[in-house]
Amino acid sequence: MTNRIQKLKDSLQSENLDGYIVANETNMLYFTGFLGGAKLLVPAKNESVLYVYGVNYEAAKEIAKDCRVELVKRAAGDGADRKVAAQIKKLELKQVGFDALDSSIFLKFQNSLKSVKLRTQSQLVWSLRKVKDKIELNYMRKAAEITNEGIKRAAEVIKPGMREYEVAAEIEYAMRKLGSDGVGFETIVASGSCSAFPHGGCTDKKIKKGEFIVIDLGAKYQHYCADLTRTFLVGEPSQKQAKIYETVRKAQQRAFESLREGVKAKDADAAARKIIKQAGYGKYFVHSLGHGIGLDVHELPTLTSEGKDLLKAGNVVTDEPGIYIVGFGGVRIEDTVLIRKEKAERLTNATYNLNV
Amino acid sequence: MTNRIQKLKDSLQSENLDGYIVANETNMLYFTGFLGGAKLLVPAKNESVLYVYGVNYEAAKEIAKDCRVELVKRAAGDGADRKVAAQIKKLELKQVGFDALDSSIFLKFQNSLKSVKLRTQSQLVWSLRKVKDKIELNYMRKAAEITNEGIKRAAEVIKPGMREYEVAAEIEYAMRKLGSDGVGFETIVASGSCSAFPHGGCTDKKIKKGEFIVIDLGAKYQHYCADLTRTFLVGEPSQKQAKIYETVRKAQQRAFESLREGVKAKDADAAARKIIKQAGYGKYFVHSLGHGIGLDVHELPTLTSEGKDLLKAGNVVTDEPGIYIVGFGGVRIEDTVLIRKEKAERLTNATYNLNV
Repeated sequence: MTNRIQKLKDSLQSENLDGYIVANETNMLYFTGFLGGAKLLVPAKNESVLYVYGVNYEAAKEIAKDCRVELVKRAAGDGADRKVAAQIKKLELKQVGFDALDSSIFLKFQNSLKSVKLRTQSQLVWSLRKVKDKIELNYMRKAAEITNEGIKRAAEVIKPGMREYEVAAEIEYAMRKLGSDGVGFETIVASGSCSAFPHGGCTDKKIKKGEFIVIDLGAKYQHYCADLTRTFLVGEPSQKQAKIYETVRKAQQRAFESLREGVKAKDADAAARKIIKQAGYGKYFVHSLGHGIGLDVHELPTLTSEGKDLLKAGNVVTDEPGIYIVGFGGVRIEDTVLIRKEKAERLTNATYNLNV
Repeated sequence: MTNRIQKLKDSLQSENLDGYIVANETNMLYFTGFLGGAKLLVPAKNESVLYVYGVNYEAAKEIAKDCRVELVKRAAGDGADRKVAAQIKKLELKQVGFDALDSSIFLKFQNSLKSVKLRTQSQLVWSLRKVKDKIELNYMRKAAEITNEGIKRAAEVIKPGMREYEVAAEIEYAMRKLGSDGVGFETIVASGSCSAFPHGGCTDKKIKKGEFIVIDLGAKYQHYCADLTRTFLVGEPSQKQAKIYETVRKAQQRAFESLREGVKAKDADAAARKIIKQAGYGKYFVHSLGHGIGLDVHELPTLTSEGKDLLKAGNVVTDEPGIYIVGFGGVRIEDTVLIRKEKAERLTNATYNLNV
């Protein structure tokens, strides 16, 4: 693994920071390879320290990279914060950035570090995490491959009378047996009226002929997530259903074709939104085109209608337009997509057939 | 569902608050029955409002209880916070509590609400959530029953040569087919040297004869979690393995017998810790006895060696002592337990046999 902590250190200078507190657990995983630390302190010029409670200390010593691991005894629950504050004082750090802190912890730090200027600087970490390196892409490709097999299994087993959660069971079982660490988020199998809700869940409802079934799934591999949605229908779609489906399919494809390095996030969103508007369903596309994905299932960059970020090679995002009509049903089609210089690449890649 | 928002309102007066911001998504679920709101504002004397972005708006209108649902258009991402601030101004609230806010959001609120006193008051919500009502207990019983079947399945399928993740696959599949919503946390199947790490994960390692296999699992049902750990061993345990196992088993039982309304959290922890110390393994019990569980897998009350809280009937906690010896292996035995007036009740209830 590249020394990501060194990269963070390198970026501190440009922000005039002489230290950085990593509090978000996924960020700690990103920097140290270990999930289960309490806080990570990265001073610009000294050794980084990962503070870990007893429950995870031995594992951290074995796994965590590029930092010293220090045991924190659990006392009143905030022992790690007190250690971080003491170390900041000892090293005489004056300008300290952090990724995210709960307000009550922030106020405690402010109180115990009166001569220190503390600043939210989550962007420093995001500018690193947004661009995936080779190792990360290998993990994401594997997560995507496993996810492809999950939706393939769903297409094989779905039949009228089957319950939504039974479909989820088959998907997750197939993915687990292929070595998935589990799922990045709760699998959605939303049929009939529930398909009109973008996060329509997964209930004991039985699947019927002729209704949309939105299936949103994602395996995890080595902590990295994939995200894929397909919409299925058992039987023959009505003319309106077919039109809605084709519109979303075309929007997803058009957005995909727009994705490459240098494109503004909002332009990708607009590419999909234009197709859906032209078909007369503009007001039913009730969310953004997509989101970044990696260690978190939702991360930066976000593909919204306001997003001014320029996409970079190495970003991994979802391309997932949808049309949701309450009382009628909904369709979403989603892939996890790697941004490249010339054109994007779909990491997930399953059938786009509506009929199963 | 009881009107939980009304209960929160009732408690505001005693804290001299005239409003409360609910920002934690699980807390919003607890109060409204809907998962997917952006913020919930509960004024002491006016209607409560759940602010929801477009992606979840239609579902919120259908599902959310005891509040008005207001659509927030996504603009720069903080639209819900601006609406909350505007409503606080309009209602002239002066003392406003909140459950948890990221420091950057807290500072924005402070800035836009200069005449308002904002205070962390997470305890107000926890004092409600800690004591489960009948509906919650029904869901938790169901989650626990499904979890019992998960570990039963593991005991049936485990054999030397099987990979850890294959065991997880079987557990999760069994639970899903019984109607689980998924898992409350990543299933742990940690065998051999990894069993010495309390959060030992689940890898592609093959299970061998004669090694400890710590299996920690929990189904979710209607958003409520269960949590159960058993330690298995294929073949015959060594004398030391048998002693460690019996020690943990006895500690878990002794702690269970100590649990009832009115007991201090730390006394329950001490009951288990004493047994383990007496057997000579005190330093290898590297975590607290247990944690509260409900909508979150880890919640209050926590059963630590410092916990001064008195347990109450309706609390649901885990009882999970362990002994972890790096280079040798580890054992944990855990049940989800309901605190009652006279004695506690195990909600999870599976075999305690070490041998499978």
